[in-house]
Amino acid sequence: VAGLQEQRICFLGLGLISGSLAMALRDSGWSGERVAWGPREPSLKRGLELGVIDRYSLELEQAVKDADMVVVGAPPVATGELLSTLLPQLPAHTVVTDLASIKGWVIEQVQAEHPGFVPGHPIAGSENSGVAAASADLFRGREVILTPLDYTDAQATERVRQLWLQVGARVSLMTVTEHDTALAASSHMPHMAAYALTKALAKHELQPMQHGGGALRDMTRIAGSDPLMWRDIVLTNREAVLQAMGQFRAEIESLEALIAAGEGPALETYFAQCRQQRRAHDEVLNPLAPKAMKDPDNSKTGESE
Amino acid sequence: VAGLQEQRICFLGLGLISGSLAMALRDSGWSGERVAWGPREPSLKRGLELGVIDRYSLELEQAVKDADMVVVGAPPVATGELLSTLLPQLPAHTVVTDLASIKGWVIEQVQAEHPGFVPGHPIAGSENSGVAAASADLFRGREVILTPLDYTDAQATERVRQLWLQVGARVSLMTVTEHDTALAASSHMPHMAAYALTKALAKHELQPMQHGGGALRDMTRIAGSDPLMWRDIVLTNREAVLQAMGQFRAEIESLEALIAAGEGPALETYFAQCRQQRRAHDEVLNPLAPKAMKDPDNSKTGESE
Repeated sequence: VAGLQEQRICFLGLGLISGSLAMALRDSGWSGERVAWGPREPSLKRGLELGVIDRYSLELEQAVKDADMVVVGAPPVATGELLSTLLPQLPAHTVVTDLASIKGWVIEQVQAEHPGFVPGHPIAGSENSGVAAASADLFRGREVILTPLDYTDAQATERVRQLWLQVGARVSLMTVTEHDTALAASSHMPHMAAYALTKALAKHELQPMQHGGGALRDMTRIAGSDPLMWRDIVLTNREAVLQAMGQFRAEIESLEALIAAGEGPALETYFAQCRQQRRAHDEVLNPLAPKAMKDPDNSKTGESE
Repeated sequence: VAGLQEQRICFLGLGLISGSLAMALRDSGWSGERVAWGPREPSLKRGLELGVIDRYSLELEQAVKDADMVVVGAPPVATGELLSTLLPQLPAHTVVTDLASIKGWVIEQVQAEHPGFVPGHPIAGSENSGVAAASADLFRGREVILTPLDYTDAQATERVRQLWLQVGARVSLMTVTEHDTALAASSHMPHMAAYALTKALAKHELQPMQHGGGALRDMTRIAGSDPLMWRDIVLTNREAVLQAMGQFRAEIESLEALIAAGEGPALETYFAQCRQQRRAHDEVLNPLAPKAMKDPDNSKTGESE
């Protein structure tokens, strides 16, 4: 397969992520048809008005009819439910992928071993929700992880890979367990840290969030994320999330111990190692940013918040 | 006093923060002279080349001579040392302020009760260091906290307030203890969270930072901050930082308990309260951002990292 060959792609659930994908496909020059279905008409209507999709249907069966590819865009629990209903009904040549942040639990909900099912997860998002917040740039330079199953047809995986390449993403393949373990640490646990930080500040008598700057802006941004989505994610990836949170908490405790003991050199080393680690991943984490200006001559003044 | 009346402002230490202030003053239309002193010539030379300052001197006494106002821009420990040397030597009419992230410890280093000393702290920064990373926009819409002392002249406080208004900042007055307690929670502890998060991921066998997206980018950005600066900050504001870290850790533990017990409704409520808290502070935390697009019709799809 060279390039994206699908003629019609159907989006089940039209929100930030699926809407951004539909918008990015349009802007990529792909000329197929984008059909959407969703539980609530206002979002679909909005997507149509914004040119995110070409048409929509309120009937699931109608929407997926003659689609070459179906993209399920919903929170994990709803994704599992939709896939378990849908996959037994679809012809074998239809390719189906999803966007859910956890893979293991979602895949467990699926009984039918549909050869076109390619579980997927784009590592991109925003704290805003809804199709109105969709952005055609959302996936540029970002990783999309696919976790094909034993019964997944290699051609189906290739077709989903082409979908994501079309919108500027990088595609990686992983096992389901690798995905859920790595993402518990790289995404799910950091979201819990942002929520816990926000909560601690909300309870503080001095209302310190009123005195926040860019550091706090960034450290709490994702605490604005969708509550239902994140409830689903942490409950369906519970063990891995708890393990990652425990590892994080151990690091907090070890920093507390160093600070309490006044261990200046050890703290400086700890912070310097983190800076190096962060800088080594700057391109992965920030693929669209211009290269940062750095002045190695001057490390004595810097972040002073 | 109407507007910034100083004719000559001297910057002791030329880095990201002081350099941004000097640059913002230039761009604001203020026509006074900007003189700098620093321990290392390359930064001063760079500042001169970039037009951040008008001239520099490598001799402290020479640099501050005839300055109407002196701005000390250095990490907390160096700030305390500089102020304790400098204040006894300066005439009473010279106004002196600093930019350090903690106030109590710095003020304790100062023996002379100079009536022109107005401790200050702009709540703005960047993970990058050095004058080359300076930005004239850094303070626009940001809070600057001043903590005038018993012996501080009210006119001096007013003159420092005018300095910051000139570059588009908002100025608040606080007691030293309020400042150090609030900032421990709003800035110092969040930096420790970013370092701990980065360290936990660095130790993880799957190297999850390679699979990070925008969420992880933001949650670890400040782990790139200057190690020496942050060693100083947490050691000189130790008690307040440890208290804030303990409060944060308690929230992490309570989230862990809710997740372990599968408390779906309680988790959803917790996350929703955090989202509300974060959104209520969006303008404070993000003063220059365009208003976010929100689609209340669709909360079922959102951040899917």
